[in-house]
Amino acid sequence: MANSFAKLSEAPSATVLEAFAAIVGRDHVSFTTGDRLAYSRDVWPRTTLQMEAGEFDYPPQLVVWPGSVEEVRAVTVEAAKHHLPVAPYGGGSGVAGGATASRGGLVLDLKRLDQVLHLDPVSNLVTAEAGIVGETLERELNRQGFTLGHFPSSLYCSTLGGWLAARSAGQLSARYGKIEDMVVSLQVALPDGRLLETLTAPHPPCGPDWNQVFVGSEGTLGVITRATLRVWPYPASRRFQAFRFPELGRGLNAIREMLQADLRPAAIRLYDPVDTFFSGTAKTMEQAGPAGASESDMERISHEERRRRERKDRFGYWPRRLVPYLLQPRLLNRYLSRKRPCKMVLTFEGEPELTALELQIAQEIGARLGGRDLGEGPARHWWEKRYKVSYAMSVAFDLGLFVDTIEVATLWDNLENLYQAMREAIAPHAFVMAHFSHAYAQGCSIYFSFGASGRTLEERLKRYDQIWKGALDACVEAGGTITHHHGVGLLKAKWLEAEEGGAQPLLKGLKQVIDPSGLLNPGKLGL
Amino acid sequence: MANSFAKLSEAPSATVLEAFAAIVGRDHVSFTTGDRLAYSRDVWPRTTLQMEAGEFDYPPQLVVWPGSVEEVRAVTVEAAKHHLPVAPYGGGSGVAGGATASRGGLVLDLKRLDQVLHLDPVSNLVTAEAGIVGETLERELNRQGFTLGHFPSSLYCSTLGGWLAARSAGQLSARYGKIEDMVVSLQVALPDGRLLETLTAPHPPCGPDWNQVFVGSEGTLGVITRATLRVWPYPASRRFQAFRFPELGRGLNAIREMLQADLRPAAIRLYDPVDTFFSGTAKTMEQAGPAGASESDMERISHEERRRRERKDRFGYWPRRLVPYLLQPRLLNRYLSRKRPCKMVLTFEGEPELTALELQIAQEIGARLGGRDLGEGPARHWWEKRYKVSYAMSVAFDLGLFVDTIEVATLWDNLENLYQAMREAIAPHAFVMAHFSHAYAQGCSIYFSFGASGRTLEERLKRYDQIWKGALDACVEAGGTITHHHGVGLLKAKWLEAEEGGAQPLLKGLKQVIDPSGLLNPGKLGL
Repeated sequence: MANSFAKLSEAPSATVLEAFAAIVGRDHVSFTTGDRLAYSRDVWPRTTLQMEAGEFDYPPQLVVWPGSVEEVRAVTVEAAKHHLPVAPYGGGSGVAGGATASRGGLVLDLKRLDQVLHLDPVSNLVTAEAGIVGETLERELNRQGFTLGHFPSSLYCSTLGGWLAARSAGQLSARYGKIEDMVVSLQVALPDGRLLETLTAPHPPCGPDWNQVFVGSEGTLGVITRATLRVWPYPASRRFQAFRFPELGRGLNAIREMLQADLRPAAIRLYDPVDTFFSGTAKTMEQAGPAGASESDMERISHEERRRRERKDRFGYWPRRLVPYLLQPRLLNRYLSRKRPCKMVLTFEGEPELTALELQIAQEIGARLGGRDLGEGPARHWWEKRYKVSYAMSVAFDLGLFVDTIEVATLWDNLENLYQAMREAIAPHAFVMAHFSHAYAQGCSIYFSFGASGRTLEERLKRYDQIWKGALDACVEAGGTITHHHGVGLLKAKWLEAEEGGAQPLLKGLKQVIDPSGLLNPGKLGL
Repeated sequence: MANSFAKLSEAPSATVLEAFAAIVGRDHVSFTTGDRLAYSRDVWPRTTLQMEAGEFDYPPQLVVWPGSVEEVRAVTVEAAKHHLPVAPYGGGSGVAGGATASRGGLVLDLKRLDQVLHLDPVSNLVTAEAGIVGETLERELNRQGFTLGHFPSSLYCSTLGGWLAARSAGQLSARYGKIEDMVVSLQVALPDGRLLETLTAPHPPCGPDWNQVFVGSEGTLGVITRATLRVWPYPASRRFQAFRFPELGRGLNAIREMLQADLRPAAIRLYDPVDTFFSGTAKTMEQAGPAGASESDMERISHEERRRRERKDRFGYWPRRLVPYLLQPRLLNRYLSRKRPCKMVLTFEGEPELTALELQIAQEIGARLGGRDLGEGPARHWWEKRYKVSYAMSVAFDLGLFVDTIEVATLWDNLENLYQAMREAIAPHAFVMAHFSHAYAQGCSIYFSFGASGRTLEERLKRYDQIWKGALDACVEAGGTITHHHGVGLLKAKWLEAEEGGAQPLLKGLKQVIDPSGLLNPGKLGL
């Protein structure tokens, strides 16, 4: 604790504070201890562990909330004058430490840039400011008969800018793509105060595609202030289907065949045997609620109410009785490794006749590959509970455990290899399960969830680091991507070079061109 | 003529020639007048005009044909030593002067890098060398049950590397995407001899997407030597449909509604009233051949035979009787401006049940918007003649005319505006018609074809430049992209800055990082 406050004591001078207050107004600059602690982390589980012990590694010197693009530009120019690094910050929902002032300086919170600026119902495009929260944007689109089709688990607490900076994927990515597939143009504040505004065109215009340089740049090259994105007519129909496959390989083949046969499922998720065992008990499968009557993509309950409900059935996902076993993950993993069946849930949405036909073809493929038809129930159940798991994670920490997720991706012909290699790397240290979502005709992502414990904080941190090192070493060795949609942040920077295939000098060179003094989010993406 | 040979006389020294011969072998370096003239241009119509008068503006000092990636690397390193610029060259089918040694130096012809290296039938990926000609690649894929889905008019005479460098689009782009949508990873030889190899993943991995920096870079940042691309199962069914709409706006609405209703036509093409008048006469409509019995996507006739047939009906497309009118384009344009009806051709391909349903929905939309059902005929006719027009163009030059095409793109809500603005800019100087192809849910490209004449070469060149200046000024003014898939080259470099929205300093900075001595394709993309 002393340590943290020592860092926090490096407050900026009154002159510096005055300079920023002159730009954004006195109410929109803060250096209070509360704000600096609140902005010292995102939801990277490692920092959650540390926080329990009163450790805050990355408190910013100050927090600034600009209210316009002009203020963003002025703040970065001012920060440069004082050699204060700038960490752009959206919802703070990142899980890799990407939005932290890890080298001091200021956190630039963009959440006041929260307007939907234009909806073009002819060209099906929306232009919105980067700080808008996902839920707000989607509700506004729904009101006007559209959807963005982007539904990350963090929808209620993440922003458009954060999605773009970290290459976010939503739960319906099989149909609507990842955020990088949706973006048509960007407005980016460069660190020298210039503004980049790419052309809004139906397809990337000539030359290098600068949108795809700033997407995924995690705040290191510019501050994304505005984006224009594709939108879709709100789907006129939605269909659900679930299968149980006798083993993992068949389920994976079914996803692959469905996507290679031109089907466009919205969600397509296959749970590995362990995840199937936990999420797919007979009880759950039968419990599926009534026919998903909600009109919107989101339950119409408040954030607080949702949080309350989650607390009520907090032990649903990480049962308290698991705790002793999590201290002995090998035992638990060995016991569960005898499980074989895998559950798949599928949804289709869009034009009614097309979704009906696509569902029918999916049923034929599923049956041919030995899938038992579970009807709609489990898919509807998933649909209704789909934002739940993220909120359940914090409960695990209350129980003295830690949990985290690792999402990687690879080609179909390497998928089971990558899965086994990473499972073997994680299993000695943690209870581990996985599901396969975000599928493409060429391959698929694997989403590992792991949970472990340790007698002391030190032991927990050590185990946490061991798990990540083992898992990502195995991933790189097996040719997977080290992240599919959570970003690199501080957590994965070490493994980035292996993935870049010789591009790191180019990235460093481009950084030097755009941001020679290293103002923007230093330490991220290896920069 | 004297002028050209003066330039050609700057032959490289024997030492320089020896150095390159030591890398690629004596047979694969040339500085003969024939080779230097042959490689002094691509098929940019302006240089075709000049060639008639014996003017060759851009003869390289030598031509080098490397046989491997290692030779490509060694050649660029050697070229740097001698301060010889390097112009990467594929099929030479570009229409904007992009593959010319416009500042001297050497042409690096990649056509010996022509192998299909790997076809992965599980992950549906192909890896091929950059110099492979489109036809060769597609035939090899067909033989193994796949298609790339990329069918530019230049299929028989363009290369994979050229497609990537210039953001090529094929005739079936509505379904399969442009080349930048197909590319999964690249191997790029950087000018300092380093090799960049991006990760082959189902979706772009973390950080900036370097594939999308080198795609569209027109040889200015690196030499693309290899690419891995998505492939599709060879389609099990193909359906055809044509409509006639009473006027342009309705036809455009039909394309838009079809794409926004989730349909995935392979080709979707709407001809403006003038183009409909020429390509859509009753005779043509009835003449549509038998039911497109060819198994492959390409007619199984040789290049020479095709060329012979084209010569035979050379006057089909640009009738000789048009010549006097082309000297008075205003008259012809005015006469034809009374025409109203617009023809649309559509094809669907893929899974039979899905294509049948998509065709049916397209028919409903077409009928609702006032389209007269023309059956399959005109669409089949287009399908069978679809590579013809490019070969017909050279005939026009024989007649003392010049012809060219301008392909731009914009959003749906700006499309008719852009069309009118550019038509008005071109019409005083040339006979002009257009079709709309390469459609997206957000917008569409416009493909103008124009033809004009002039009494002297000087007059023709002056008119040619006037037309382009007028057209692209109008395009930029109206917010269109200055090119959708032909690239920038020398022709459009002047207008590029307007399109880049502030990215030009970034591009120049990146060029400085990668290629500080300006070795690669200088003068292109404004670099």
